[in-house]
Amino acid sequence: MNTAASPSDSPLVRAARGESVPHTPVWFMRQAGRSLPEYRELRAGTTMMEACRTPDLVTEITLQPVRRHNVDAAIFFSDIVVPLEAVGIDIDIEPGVGPVLDVPFRSREDLDRIPELTADMVPDITESVRRIVMDLGATPLVGFAGAPFTLASYLIEGGPSKNHEHTKSLMHGDPQLWHDLCARLSQIAATFLQVQVDAGASAVQLFDSWAGFLSKADYRQHVLPHSRVALAALADREVPRIHFGVGTGELLPDMAAEETEVIGVDYRVSLAEAIERVGADRPVQGNLDPALLFAPWEVIETQVRRILAEGRAAPGHIFNLGHGVLPDTDPVVLTRVVELIHEVSAR
Amino acid sequence: MNTAASPSDSPLVRAARGESVPHTPVWFMRQAGRSLPEYRELRAGTTMMEACRTPDLVTEITLQPVRRHNVDAAIFFSDIVVPLEAVGIDIDIEPGVGPVLDVPFRSREDLDRIPELTADMVPDITESVRRIVMDLGATPLVGFAGAPFTLASYLIEGGPSKNHEHTKSLMHGDPQLWHDLCARLSQIAATFLQVQVDAGASAVQLFDSWAGFLSKADYRQHVLPHSRVALAALADREVPRIHFGVGTGELLPDMAAEETEVIGVDYRVSLAEAIERVGADRPVQGNLDPALLFAPWEVIETQVRRILAEGRAAPGHIFNLGHGVLPDTDPVVLTRVVELIHEVSAR
Repeated sequence: MNTAASPSDSPLVRAARGESVPHTPVWFMRQAGRSLPEYRELRAGTTMMEACRTPDLVTEITLQPVRRHNVDAAIFFSDIVVPLEAVGIDIDIEPGVGPVLDVPFRSREDLDRIPELTADMVPDITESVRRIVMDLGATPLVGFAGAPFTLASYLIEGGPSKNHEHTKSLMHGDPQLWHDLCARLSQIAATFLQVQVDAGASAVQLFDSWAGFLSKADYRQHVLPHSRVALAALADREVPRIHFGVGTGELLPDMAAEETEVIGVDYRVSLAEAIERVGADRPVQGNLDPALLFAPWEVIETQVRRILAEGRAAPGHIFNLGHGVLPDTDPVVLTRVVELIHEVSAR
Repeated sequence: MNTAASPSDSPLVRAARGESVPHTPVWFMRQAGRSLPEYRELRAGTTMMEACRTPDLVTEITLQPVRRHNVDAAIFFSDIVVPLEAVGIDIDIEPGVGPVLDVPFRSREDLDRIPELTADMVPDITESVRRIVMDLGATPLVGFAGAPFTLASYLIEGGPSKNHEHTKSLMHGDPQLWHDLCARLSQIAATFLQVQVDAGASAVQLFDSWAGFLSKADYRQHVLPHSRVALAALADREVPRIHFGVGTGELLPDMAAEETEVIGVDYRVSLAEAIERVGADRPVQGNLDPALLFAPWEVIETQVRRILAEGRAAPGHIFNLGHGVLPDTDPVVLTRVVELIHEVSAR
């Protein structure tokens, strides 16, 4: 559905800049992944980390949903902890669990074990992005990195955590070490995004999986400043920056205070209310509840139309889910949602 | 620290009514449970469901934290799904997982498999409460039940869920069945609370574990009306009703619109802001982040003093955590927190 001459003139990039678009652009967080049978087939016999570091696989997996769903952007297939593994941290991604470390990071000595990321540590990422971009033509690729807080939580807890007790205790108990750790992680996240943009990505998304487990005070004081540093490092690349976190309805005004072109909105807050919170001059992305893709089509259609209508109050709206595609989602439904969005929003 | 002559004159009940108190009362969600070595010892060899249905165990487990920590209330030791098991639903509580059902509930026929709860189905609950209350003397017992949405999610998903896709799809796809299911579940929750109050509990808490996974619109339309019915069924018992849900900062104004004496506050929103949202005429409960109990003592003390100060803006404040005690919490820290609260808030 992309009739632009180049990615920089595509509906996604235009919407992110608040410019007029032929239709509302749409992509889905986790569109590349387990909901697609062709993905599951391709992944058979490889670990997640191997898949993320193999250009043949990254390229094909990133392109699969674009071909199938006719979405307006590709999202770079990776994992939040890939740049951590790239700097030499011993980290695995266990099926059904997520990233796990044998030895969690909790001291000043641990911090010294985390070098800065440089482009020459991830030649495979550069190669994957180049191949994807060549194949995509005028369809933009969105680059991807995890935000410093989410990276820090994986490192400090040693894996996924519902409570983040060691992370929060370090944050409050040793604020200087926390700051230094997050400074390193924001350098790593920023470089990971820069590498993708330098290889041809047309936009970036900084993804904060765990931000919704913080109080507003903690987010403002201990987390957002580091995400801001990561985003600011992209300023001279002149690509739209999307900032998204799960469960961040209350944090939207703070997130919007930074120099970020697009604010991603979780499904818990209505898009109309989110636009009020981020300010009417800011493009937004979101926010269909991915759980509702399991409902009858009439329910989905009603929700899609409501979100499209609400999005018109912003200078730009990129349709997306309010969180990632769930693994058991029927991909046929996703394709149908893309068709509906393109049809309803055609100008 | 309870010098009252009876539970109805205790600091907890007085605070819940907005009356003057000798000190801010404190208890901790999940104070009875895995953080206590004496609990782990007592539980050895029994399943969670057996423990919840055995008066000897329920009584001792409920009393353990009162003896150890000198808290101002006991919380009835149970599990959210106990009343579902009591009406005959085949449900287990698996260690490290939570409640699981072999056959999820998703149809009208499934609803017919859920009878109403009557007091004669839970004589063990009546016996446990009577014994606990006798032992507690002037210290109040808080009765406990899960809210209809959380019960519905366990039934529909067949276990704990991060995404609640089947629950939300049923809610939107078949609103009449959803309504009928929740009506049944609110009857069950209400009766479970009534039984506890009739046996001597001095307050009740309705606990909605999963409410934070809903949009405000869904909560208002499909969930809150059913919680309200459960709470309203306690009106003639004349005990304070506490309504708490995890991740409900945005839902507080709606929760406060009901006839509920006390609004429980999750740690994600500051108590000061919560009081603004629920209205300055409403007692509140909360809201120390349980993860911060792992921080150095100075951090904990600062947070406790801040929360106590913020709580003074409400007509009544019951100190609690913003979620349950985490299993690895050092119980010595909990005792120390109680001492600090009693000392700082003594009037």
